[in-house]
Amino acid sequence: MNILFIMYDQLRFDYLSCAGHPHLHTPNFDRVAAMGLQFSQCYVQSPICGASRMSYYTGRYTSSHGAQWNGFPLRVGEVTLGDHLRKLGMHSWLIGKTHMKVDADGMARLGLAADSIIGARQAECGFDAWIRDDGLWGQGPEGFYDAKRSPYNEYLKSKGYDGENPWSDYANSGIDADGDMASGWMFKNADKPANIREEDSETPWLTSETIRFIDQAEGDWLAHVSYIKPHWPYIVPAPYHDMYGPQHVLPAKRADREREEPHPVYGTFLSNKIAAAFQQDAVREKVIPAYMGLIKQADDQLGRLLDHLDETGRMKDTMIVLCSDHGDYLGDHWLGEKDLFHEASVKVPMIIYDPRSKADSTRGTTCDALVESIDLAATFIEAAGGEVPDHIVEGRSLMPWLEGRDTDWREYVVSEYDYSATPMCVALGVAPKDARLFMVFDGRWKLIHAEGGFRPMLFDLKTDPDEFDDLAKGAAHSTEIARLYDMLADWGRRCNQRVTRSDADIVASRGGSAKKGILPFMVDGKEVPQEWTEKYRGPARQNYTKKPQ
Amino acid sequence: MNILFIMYDQLRFDYLSCAGHPHLHTPNFDRVAAMGLQFSQCYVQSPICGASRMSYYTGRYTSSHGAQWNGFPLRVGEVTLGDHLRKLGMHSWLIGKTHMKVDADGMARLGLAADSIIGARQAECGFDAWIRDDGLWGQGPEGFYDAKRSPYNEYLKSKGYDGENPWSDYANSGIDADGDMASGWMFKNADKPANIREEDSETPWLTSETIRFIDQAEGDWLAHVSYIKPHWPYIVPAPYHDMYGPQHVLPAKRADREREEPHPVYGTFLSNKIAAAFQQDAVREKVIPAYMGLIKQADDQLGRLLDHLDETGRMKDTMIVLCSDHGDYLGDHWLGEKDLFHEASVKVPMIIYDPRSKADSTRGTTCDALVESIDLAATFIEAAGGEVPDHIVEGRSLMPWLEGRDTDWREYVVSEYDYSATPMCVALGVAPKDARLFMVFDGRWKLIHAEGGFRPMLFDLKTDPDEFDDLAKGAAHSTEIARLYDMLADWGRRCNQRVTRSDADIVASRGGSAKKGILPFMVDGKEVPQEWTEKYRGPARQNYTKKPQ
Repeated sequence: MNILFIMYDQLRFDYLSCAGHPHLHTPNFDRVAAMGLQFSQCYVQSPICGASRMSYYTGRYTSSHGAQWNGFPLRVGEVTLGDHLRKLGMHSWLIGKTHMKVDADGMARLGLAADSIIGARQAECGFDAWIRDDGLWGQGPEGFYDAKRSPYNEYLKSKGYDGENPWSDYANSGIDADGDMASGWMFKNADKPANIREEDSETPWLTSETIRFIDQAEGDWLAHVSYIKPHWPYIVPAPYHDMYGPQHVLPAKRADREREEPHPVYGTFLSNKIAAAFQQDAVREKVIPAYMGLIKQADDQLGRLLDHLDETGRMKDTMIVLCSDHGDYLGDHWLGEKDLFHEASVKVPMIIYDPRSKADSTRGTTCDALVESIDLAATFIEAAGGEVPDHIVEGRSLMPWLEGRDTDWREYVVSEYDYSATPMCVALGVAPKDARLFMVFDGRWKLIHAEGGFRPMLFDLKTDPDEFDDLAKGAAHSTEIARLYDMLADWGRRCNQRVTRSDADIVASRGGSAKKGILPFMVDGKEVPQEWTEKYRGPARQNYTKKPQ
Repeated sequence: MNILFIMYDQLRFDYLSCAGHPHLHTPNFDRVAAMGLQFSQCYVQSPICGASRMSYYTGRYTSSHGAQWNGFPLRVGEVTLGDHLRKLGMHSWLIGKTHMKVDADGMARLGLAADSIIGARQAECGFDAWIRDDGLWGQGPEGFYDAKRSPYNEYLKSKGYDGENPWSDYANSGIDADGDMASGWMFKNADKPANIREEDSETPWLTSETIRFIDQAEGDWLAHVSYIKPHWPYIVPAPYHDMYGPQHVLPAKRADREREEPHPVYGTFLSNKIAAAFQQDAVREKVIPAYMGLIKQADDQLGRLLDHLDETGRMKDTMIVLCSDHGDYLGDHWLGEKDLFHEASVKVPMIIYDPRSKADSTRGTTCDALVESIDLAATFIEAAGGEVPDHIVEGRSLMPWLEGRDTDWREYVVSEYDYSATPMCVALGVAPKDARLFMVFDGRWKLIHAEGGFRPMLFDLKTDPDEFDDLAKGAAHSTEIARLYDMLADWGRRCNQRVTRSDADIVASRGGSAKKGILPFMVDGKEVPQEWTEKYRGPARQNYTKKPQ
């Protein structure tokens, strides 16, 4: 079997028609949902690209793999999805973005050459790269944000787009009234069409690369198709730029009382530049239609991919997963971007189509179980015929849900966020190690713990689905707070670094030392069979002499 | 400066005259204590050889490095003391035991050759091996416990000791009345002299190797001199075998009430074979004098080493550390061996001599601070002139104590024990992942948490220094229990895997992305200096054309 592990970047859980969006029609996402199973409560391990992705690619919580924010290298030797699947004879390919940063110091310490196969896999989260393009080719006075080569820029140049950085100048810019470049970085330009042929824009380009990969692929494979969009810059080529307008923009989910005595951490995020921008309706009315257009384009390209699978007969033997690394506030809760733990940010779409007949009973249905993004790695390992090495992979296989089997499931999900590298850490005056947040959500109650001596935050999603009322403001709810803190404490003691010994290894090792002559309990030898000890008795020990004098 | 990092195996904190033993006179340990600083409250991170040592060698808690029991390999790439010191120009040498098991799977995954320098260091906790001999050459029906070559057995053979395993047949055996071999594995033989020339026994041999190392060493070095003794088998050559007798054996620290409604985990350990043996006074009266003889021999050999340092002038530039990987119950609390968290098992000697004048003010004094074994790695890094990388090393440098400086210190120590590989796990019927114990001690109250749904254990060392009364048996003390559980929860959320990014790296990285053109907050460009954005404006962008048609 093959696996198409498709990830969109910054795609909100509720911006799909199969998730109930009233204006955004996504027939192709819906088509996969109709063929497969849609999870209504999937949470990422961290609402930020890099950390979330490292959790997807390792099946481990961010505080287990340690790459807790963008640009924090994944430690050398951390076992990845690619490592697990290779052992099972399935190769893992990367097509697009990972946001992976290589642990260059660790590689040097171990003498690993970056240009060796093993070295290259260490640099690509364990994937073999069909195409690696992280899709953020920003440039400023200090040069490029991403120093790697850009296959996408190379593609654009080959198509006649001029300049050093056509990603910036064409794919992510429009043209203003004076005929000057209108940067997609500026929200005021979000309603302009990107100055690029639609088929050359990022999402169609990566889709074409995916089809090119599929057509030549042999054997069992997993392809991680990782789109940069609908991630900012928020600008999209025609015809998608004006498919939606202010009339399609849903009102911001926000309440004035959220800004009254806000939790210090939330309060600080409220005043960052992105939040300030998205607090303006004019910005939302320009940006959100572009965001919807980017999703609509992604849906059309998904349709192109699905049609290709149908035509080539691969739909019968290809598992398809649609997910995202995190959401986008889009002005909800007075915020922009992601980073915190409201549903808009930490909850993501998760739709899985399993072609095998075992999964027939759940096609077209929805599962409300508490799912974590780390569950995918476990699911892929089981789909590839392996047993999940649960001393390494912390996620749990979703196969029972796909096959409609009863299963004992987790009672809560955990997500983490490290804001030590952000201006909010400076503004709050906390040490980097204290700039860490933990979310525990049990399906109703959502507790957010902040290191550094702050009070927690608490939301009751049953009585307050919009998460407007931080119940930890007052003295009430201490019982719920204590209960969720106990869950967090249990999670904190989880066995997550004993990665070199499985439970089965341990069971098999029991009692071995005595049979190898380690007998630190013998009084007179009667404690063990004679053959274990006779070697230490006179008769069995020939030529026993006094010590050399 | 050089560092002699001397570790004894299974040496109790209170079996030294400088620690108050009434019968065991250890003038050479006392001599180092008089020259240096003695820590009265040093706790190991796990009361078991392998796990404790991996914490000493990495400066990290056992649940951080993952090698939580004997024979659990230390994951490839885990940063060790050797790695830290090499960066500072100090080489780390191993002379003796580490109990390290190499992560062969991880090495294979990364293509590391065992016979390469880097590969060899991965197999030796980051040390370069002068001599690696773990000192347990037990043999049984399934062969040798330790499959590696034994430099000590090779030495004995070169000295004319015959047979395949003179470690067993001579160094650790006596002769019985019939002239047959009397195995040192049997407690009944503990009072016999080992059938070996004293100078050929393990402790003098390793001391000679150490002197040989010192005499040829150049540059700054750390030598980890790691003795197997006074670890079992409990047998010692003349004249040490009869220096002590039953009259020197202190009464067992045990009370009948300890066995009334014991905690299920403690209760299960009470019934293991070693505990059963040490519950017999006859066993204690044979074993403890041998144990004391082994310590006395270690003290004499320490004197030999100290004299050599004096004679060669190296005492002026050599830091000396005396410590142990864990203690030995010797029948206290009705137990033998180690494994649990009573003081006899989890507290160890820690004596540090720093030759530098900065340390003059504390010579000959005692420090009662709560010290952990992981603090040594940090101390050595600071002694070598480095800054402690506290995103990797969880211990704290002891230099402030050595130099008599005021310092903000930890409020509690944590130790852990994984008994998943033992018969006690089977007897209790808990899953391997639940066979884990955690100790939190704040200087007065000692809480032991057991995974698997058991109640905790609680001791008040102020009112009950002997730890006879498990206060968690009743419903009382819930406040103290909750307070210590909060400490454990804080510890559980510690930032211990973000090993590829220091706090300084994070601070330096702040705000970098905007200057590299990542501007996801711009409404109209006024938010940033013009030069950041002009590249995206018409004038600065020459030959801007419409997209290729």
